[in-house]
Amino acid sequence: MQNVQGRPLSASENQSRARLVDAARHHFSVHGYAATTTRDIATAAAVNPAMIRYYFGHKAGLFETVLRETVAPMLNLINKHPAPNGPVNLAALVQQYHSMMLPYPELPKLIFRALHNPDSVEYDIVMQVFDGVLRFGIDRLLKQISHSTPATDDVDGKAVVVSALALAVFPFLLPPPFRQVLNFSATSDQLAAIASLADRLFIPAKIVQHGEKNA
Amino acid sequence: MQNVQGRPLSASENQSRARLVDAARHHFSVHGYAATTTRDIATAAAVNPAMIRYYFGHKAGLFETVLRETVAPMLNLINKHPAPNGPVNLAALVQQYHSMMLPYPELPKLIFRALHNPDSVEYDIVMQVFDGVLRFGIDRLLKQISHSTPATDDVDGKAVVVSALALAVFPFLLPPPFRQVLNFSATSDQLAAIASLADRLFIPAKIVQHGEKNA
Repeated sequence: MQNVQGRPLSASENQSRARLVDAARHHFSVHGYAATTTRDIATAAAVNPAMIRYYFGHKAGLFETVLRETVAPMLNLINKHPAPNGPVNLAALVQQYHSMMLPYPELPKLIFRALHNPDSVEYDIVMQVFDGVLRFGIDRLLKQISHSTPATDDVDGKAVVVSALALAVFPFLLPPPFRQVLNFSATSDQLAAIASLADRLFIPAKIVQHGEKNA
Repeated sequence: MQNVQGRPLSASENQSRARLVDAARHHFSVHGYAATTTRDIATAAAVNPAMIRYYFGHKAGLFETVLRETVAPMLNLINKHPAPNGPVNLAALVQQYHSMMLPYPELPKLIFRALHNPDSVEYDIVMQVFDGVLRFGIDRLLKQISHSTPATDDVDGKAVVVSALALAVFPFLLPPPFRQVLNFSATSDQLAAIASLADRLFIPAKIVQHGEKNA
């Protein structure tokens, strides 16, 4: 890790930096981006507020770091994801999103609200982190789906991708009254059950036919 | 139809009333509940603003009417829905939600925001319309799923219901950047493709086994 000028951080600096990122993720998630001050974060992290400027430049830089570090496993998975003609593994993608967000169940709401508010500072930061990988990942997935689909089979790739996104994100967005009626909370068991359903979105005829072909 | 005092409306009154409901649905959906005035709605409907008080009592009453009349087909379907031991038809429920909201694609966002904001006036109104049927519908669905599932089969009914809700609602909530990258819009074709995936959430072993039993 390094500071905004590019100087490498010492071990104790790395610890303060990590505490700031944790505190920021919590405060941004629970109180929203605008309502969170760098002072709130520094106080929660028990770190001198000046260190935020030193490590991250400003609040926006800290938020960008929170996003990048939280979603890094997902971005890695997408970047390493099999070639355009490789297999489709929707459940793995959905499950990766779930396990990434499980410790921060409010963060998907924050990202969701930001993406619906293009005039906000948060929107620009979220887009800076996600835009490229979003385009790459979705394009790759559509190619994989189209490649894995026999020409005779009428699969709507876009519908499959939107549905997989729904299974990934919606469990975190479920409004409280639904949560109560269903007695549902985003625990790892519940999320695993939902992720396992993602593969069925793209199973039926196809997998069977592929299985027969390979047999 | 009748006014708030219960007097039946004449044919021309019914027309004004219908124009007010249409204009209100549009304004509430596009501008939000708080930012919409009864004057805006009356102007758009070309109806005297005093008529809103006469037909609906107040802005909240008008919003409640908008919700009730928009979701009536869904509520009917849930109320008529087969017995607790009847078949599970997730695709039909998802498709009903889609076709109900297709002409008003902003309305699910308004309902979603209201349900996440328990301090708002909208929350109380939405809950007044949905709460009973929500409890009844979800309970019924969970019973149907549990009844249709062989005891040996490890189906998580809650996960299925949350996933079906996701397929119903999320296509309308998809953030604009995803919409653009996917070139997705909530057209009837796209929504039909997504609704058809809903049944797969609850197919695999079960339908096959039931098929065998009946054969």
